[in-house]
Amino acid sequence: MQASTDSSLGLDGEADEPATATRARRDFLRRSMAAGGLLAATAAVRAAPAAAPAGNAAPAAADAPLDIPAWTRAPGAATGAQLYGQPSAFEKSVVRHLRPNDKQYISSSTRSPLQELDGIITPNGLFYERHHGGVPAIDPAQHRLAVHGLVDAPLLFTLDDLRRFPSESHIYFLECSGNPGYNVYGKTAAEANGLVSCAEWTGVPLRTVLAEAGVQSKAKWVIAEGADAAAMTRSIPLDKCLDDALLVYSQNGERLRPEQGYPLRLLLPGFEGNMSIKWLRRLHVTDAPVFSREETSKYTDLMPDGSARRFTFYMEAKSIITAPSGGQRLAQPGFHEIRGIAWSGRGKITRVEVSVDDGATWQEAALQAPVLSRAITRFRFPWNWQGEPTVIQSRATDETGYVQPTLEALVAVRGVNGTYHNNAITPWRVAANGEVTNARIKAS
Amino acid sequence: MQASTDSSLGLDGEADEPATATRARRDFLRRSMAAGGLLAATAAVRAAPAAAPAGNAAPAAADAPLDIPAWTRAPGAATGAQLYGQPSAFEKSVVRHLRPNDKQYISSSTRSPLQELDGIITPNGLFYERHHGGVPAIDPAQHRLAVHGLVDAPLLFTLDDLRRFPSESHIYFLECSGNPGYNVYGKTAAEANGLVSCAEWTGVPLRTVLAEAGVQSKAKWVIAEGADAAAMTRSIPLDKCLDDALLVYSQNGERLRPEQGYPLRLLLPGFEGNMSIKWLRRLHVTDAPVFSREETSKYTDLMPDGSARRFTFYMEAKSIITAPSGGQRLAQPGFHEIRGIAWSGRGKITRVEVSVDDGATWQEAALQAPVLSRAITRFRFPWNWQGEPTVIQSRATDETGYVQPTLEALVAVRGVNGTYHNNAITPWRVAANGEVTNARIKAS
Repeated sequence: MQASTDSSLGLDGEADEPATATRARRDFLRRSMAAGGLLAATAAVRAAPAAAPAGNAAPAAADAPLDIPAWTRAPGAATGAQLYGQPSAFEKSVVRHLRPNDKQYISSSTRSPLQELDGIITPNGLFYERHHGGVPAIDPAQHRLAVHGLVDAPLLFTLDDLRRFPSESHIYFLECSGNPGYNVYGKTAAEANGLVSCAEWTGVPLRTVLAEAGVQSKAKWVIAEGADAAAMTRSIPLDKCLDDALLVYSQNGERLRPEQGYPLRLLLPGFEGNMSIKWLRRLHVTDAPVFSREETSKYTDLMPDGSARRFTFYMEAKSIITAPSGGQRLAQPGFHEIRGIAWSGRGKITRVEVSVDDGATWQEAALQAPVLSRAITRFRFPWNWQGEPTVIQSRATDETGYVQPTLEALVAVRGVNGTYHNNAITPWRVAANGEVTNARIKAS
Repeated sequence: MQASTDSSLGLDGEADEPATATRARRDFLRRSMAAGGLLAATAAVRAAPAAAPAGNAAPAAADAPLDIPAWTRAPGAATGAQLYGQPSAFEKSVVRHLRPNDKQYISSSTRSPLQELDGIITPNGLFYERHHGGVPAIDPAQHRLAVHGLVDAPLLFTLDDLRRFPSESHIYFLECSGNPGYNVYGKTAAEANGLVSCAEWTGVPLRTVLAEAGVQSKAKWVIAEGADAAAMTRSIPLDKCLDDALLVYSQNGERLRPEQGYPLRLLLPGFEGNMSIKWLRRLHVTDAPVFSREETSKYTDLMPDGSARRFTFYMEAKSIITAPSGGQRLAQPGFHEIRGIAWSGRGKITRVEVSVDDGATWQEAALQAPVLSRAITRFRFPWNWQGEPTVIQSRATDETGYVQPTLEALVAVRGVNGTYHNNAITPWRVAANGEVTNARIKAS
């Protein structure tokens, strides 16, 4: 092993960051140390003894400046004390966000705490929810999926039947089409845009099951129906069913959670979330849509002239800065990494731009690989905040060339009658004291 | 939308599967139906009414053959009843595997239930554990990371300090080097190889923090020490620390779980798991390894001649079939998808081969994209089982060209004195009645 201390290993060697950011970051710790008393602590570390003696002994003498914490002085919890693990008690505030007045309500939603999350995978316990008739408790041994209508052979499947089919796994986002309404300005990233999450889904391509049944030539739509109390029902174009639609039984490695459709759900990558019918019990192959409640009086886009756009399936390109975001506070000027997420129902994210000067100029953010089609993409942007009041925001571009719009541009076309498909930019105001708020909420 | 029913949409159109498999699968459902009484059920579906009426009404008349289940007849649980979600009560047996005699033991392990998992992400609740002094309950506000030794500026970090550094997210596997011992033949996939899991990790590149401290020219090693009661201590080559090592605070989107090192762990992609020090409190930069207990009396490879190989960091290429696997049973002959996982500490998996005839012939399995470096890769192989007793097994090849060996080949070189780095093929015996057992366990 070689010691390697030349400059290519240091921060200056990182190709994707401007030198100013590098310098800002180099300065940040020194300034923190001067300001926050860390210099003294650092001096103490200098005086600490050499590496821990071999074995299980405590690593430093009792009089050393680097104290041995209480949790090192006594054995921890037994291995396997939790055969299904849970978060630390110190993270108990990191939960899904439920609007206070919606408590104990069967047709409602909870939001993912985007401002607390990293990476692209949403853990199952924090995946957003939207239910229309509550969460049913389904016995998988009793559950069946019926495929009928314009098919050569109507079929009835148990879960075991379906799990024997060839399977696929894909990482896809899922987003409620009401994320958020056009005049909903959340205080936090969760409140503003928390009806989006991303997971690795495993299941059977729907085209495989439809081929087994034999789709007839007149067929053009598939009506999917859930086994919940709402019997959630949506009409899905046959093309989508024969493309990338999945009959999903697992999410992030394990079986679906009850609130995500256990034991079986549909997954339509890139389409508005409610079409990915949960607790799926029936697929009826037809030549026309069924015009269910959830595609007529709900989940249509009411335009300024009173007309309604229907069957607007795709969730368009979108992004949001999750750190720093509303409710957070920058402790001091200096280097801060702006972090956020971007996604598009049309395919891959190709570019995310960040503005740190209230939209005057835009700079390209780094995208974390792998960038996957119809999955969340994590972006990062190095920012040297000088302490000035400003507005920060991000905008996404997808592989079709579509650019995420401002709310003003969306409203100019759609008005504010509608509730759905608001993929506007979310601007965050940063005050001189570092406090971050939603720039759309007027100061009181 | 166009109806599309030509053969290109059917099973015959799937390019990556042989026609025999396609035929086998087509036959499977028909045979299942004949054998299992599904024909009658299918006929009932034929007589079922058309799609659900629009709205929230129950979808079928009370006298229809497709019964309305109890969970559709009444509202489900309220939205947000669980602000941090949990698995279905029907999945309560899907937990980490703890050896019965290890209960309430601080230096032990639990295994991921590989035979129950899909995809490549292991959910945090089922990620394998290996502890040497139990699981400490660490207050993140009190936790510190010290960096000292052969550096220009010793530094002491809070969690907030570290989270302000530029971050990265990567999907990597983690595997205990004792997965399993050379004469441990587990009955299930979990017992055989469950000390491996895979997650998306987010944190700070260690090279960034070391550059901040300024590594001196004499430095060659970094001694990492945990804050657990074992003060778990390992020596890590500086090259690895300046390459892809991460200081991790998040796993699968949320903060690390306590048993995975909350609030801070080291992550050394591809290296044996115990070197990715959990509850990380100190990094001591040195010119020599510290020869801790966990790299001398433990975690060295004891050879037949009594010598011990030390500092054998890399986990070599490996794979295991997880379905069908030990403890499972094939319900009937016909189509079965063989599924499993492969991984290599050296980089990407390039090939997985499957044998269904006790090693006489091998065929290439399909790899699920994306195939990521030092991550688990899911493989699948279509198998038309004729009901014959046989042995099935998989072997992985990685991008270095290394091929996973048989246990016999490994033991010929290493003997059975050692405990670590057994990456041998796991063969599963399939009996005529469909029962699957570990082929290394002699029938009694």
